[in-house]
Amino acid sequence: MAKISIMPREEKFFDLIEAGAANMVRTAEALKELVNDWRDIPEKFHKITELEHAGDSVTHQIIAMLHRSFVTPFDREDIALLAHSMDDVVDFIHSAADYMMLYKVGKPNDRVRELAEIILLGAKEVVAAAPKLRKKSGLKSLLEHCIEINRLENQADQAYRAALVELFEEHNIADVIKWREIYESMESATDRCEDVANVFEGVALKNA
Amino acid sequence: MAKISIMPREEKFFDLIEAGAANMVRTAEALKELVNDWRDIPEKFHKITELEHAGDSVTHQIIAMLHRSFVTPFDREDIALLAHSMDDVVDFIHSAADYMMLYKVGKPNDRVRELAEIILLGAKEVVAAAPKLRKKSGLKSLLEHCIEINRLENQADQAYRAALVELFEEHNIADVIKWREIYESMESATDRCEDVANVFEGVALKNA
Amino acid sequence: MAKISIMPREEKFFDLIEAGAANMVRTAEALKELVNDWRDIPEKFHKITELEHAGDSVTHQIIAMLHRSFVTPFDREDIALLAHSMDDVVDFIHSAADYMMLYKVGKPNDRVRELAEIILLGAKEVVAAAPKLRKKSGLKSLLEHCIEINRLENQADQAYRAALVELFEEHNIADVIKWREIYESMESATDRCEDVANVFEGVALKNA
Repeated sequence: MAKISIMPREEKFFDLIEAGAANMVRTAEALKELVNDWRDIPEKFHKITELEHAGDSVTHQIIAMLHRSFVTPFDREDIALLAHSMDDVVDFIHSAADYMMLYKVGKPNDRVRELAEIILLGAKEVVAAAPKLRKKSGLKSLLEHCIEINRLENQADQAYRAALVELFEEHNIADVIKWREIYESMESATDRCEDVANVFEGVALKNA
Repeated sequence: MAKISIMPREEKFFDLIEAGAANMVRTAEALKELVNDWRDIPEKFHKITELEHAGDSVTHQIIAMLHRSFVTPFDREDIALLAHSMDDVVDFIHSAADYMMLYKVGKPNDRVRELAEIILLGAKEVVAAAPKLRKKSGLKSLLEHCIEINRLENQADQAYRAALVELFEEHNIADVIKWREIYESMESATDRCEDVANVFEGVALKNA
Repeated sequence: MAKISIMPREEKFFDLIEAGAANMVRTAEALKELVNDWRDIPEKFHKITELEHAGDSVTHQIIAMLHRSFVTPFDREDIALLAHSMDDVVDFIHSAADYMMLYKVGKPNDRVRELAEIILLGAKEVVAAAPKLRKKSGLKSLLEHCIEINRLENQADQAYRAALVELFEEHNIADVIKWREIYESMESATDRCEDVANVFEGVALKNA
């Protein structure tokens, strides 16, 4: 705070939002690595935990800057909501991995890999969309990313249901409950990605 | 968009909101038909799926019109939230029916029929409330519908809990988990109905 | 309403918010008593039900006053959201107790007591934070309570996961499902406490 910076405050908000989005992609990639190659599990889980802490730090920086800034590039509440939603995506990814550890489940199946892929695609859409907040001219094209994130959320929802049906056919009840919890966390990660998209949509609507 | 219309833009928003509400009622009626008369199941499920697509189309039209309108009858974000909440009600109804198909459950019991009835009553309140958005003089009476929707949501919540208790007494664990998922989707439909009511309440509060 | 009062309207809003917060603490204390001393269960549950009704009454008073007030101390929607979130905390506490009755579960374990303690601590933070809404000079220190409520929500989340793992190790599947529902309601109570904190944060942000 004592440091003098030539970078204007508003730019710094966008930098932090983009840093949060980039951290989402890194966490989604770490989950994909974990479920696609079920080895060195403690190390991979440790990495996801570290990325979750990094995400917390970005969120705190955004909220703290909101409190010491008189001017913000768009509505304060929307910036706060965006920060919390991105944080939630990372938390749910961590939560899914955490349940895999806690329940000592075996090797993830194709459905888990499918859900991890959808989460990563959603995070990548957020990364592609975030820089478009910087300029009024970018706001229109923001909406295409929102539509794609919505489509991915629907896809995750269908994968989740198919996964549940398969669970009942192939596993005992204890495994059904355990994996259901994991699937649910993964599906929630895409839901929160949609929350991010809804903030984007709202910002585009208000500033159109 | 090239078509010249004598209908003012603002009226068109209300028309679409009412179309979305009417589609909610039709979907709730289709669910009630399905669970009350457990025959011709694929046809009835197909109808619910078609209504879900019709609902998506209304939602997209509302959001698209938000983006090309300079003036909106009430806050843009509230219109978007209303559209998404109505969409969610229909999605959860579809989701409940979808689980019934996927899990190949048997004939629905009285509790399922009770929940379907509550969802329909909630949707009918939304249909009755929506036209009151058109005039400032209607906003006060909007709140009576909100109170009724809240009451119905509480009733759904109680039916959901009673249904769970009965599940444990009468079924094996696999059925408990399957029906719980169906009950949960139905209860969520009434939760989202309450989200619609909250938007109504907010609009009435802001414009009182 | 016919009564003449020297107390200005705005003060009355704060009084009601503080009454709602105090009721949250009383309900959380009643839950703690229930799970720490598993005797006189019907009486203790009855007390929680009464506190839930008292909470409903405060919520209705806040919403009703919103509708007949031209001036409000902060944004109408935020006051409504705050009232509904405090109501939800109490509802989830009641819901957890209700499931314990309905499912006729045995004596609660340490994890349940841990969750009840976290809910109470969260409610106490809300009580400590609420009076700071009254003065602009208090808004900054509001955020410290929000941070603490967030921390407690994370702690509840960890307790919830640990509780689930222990459930699988120590209980049969029917008990796993029943207790999971109870844990989930308790964890949701702390989530809604975080919603309260988010409204506080938003108010502080908008009026900073």
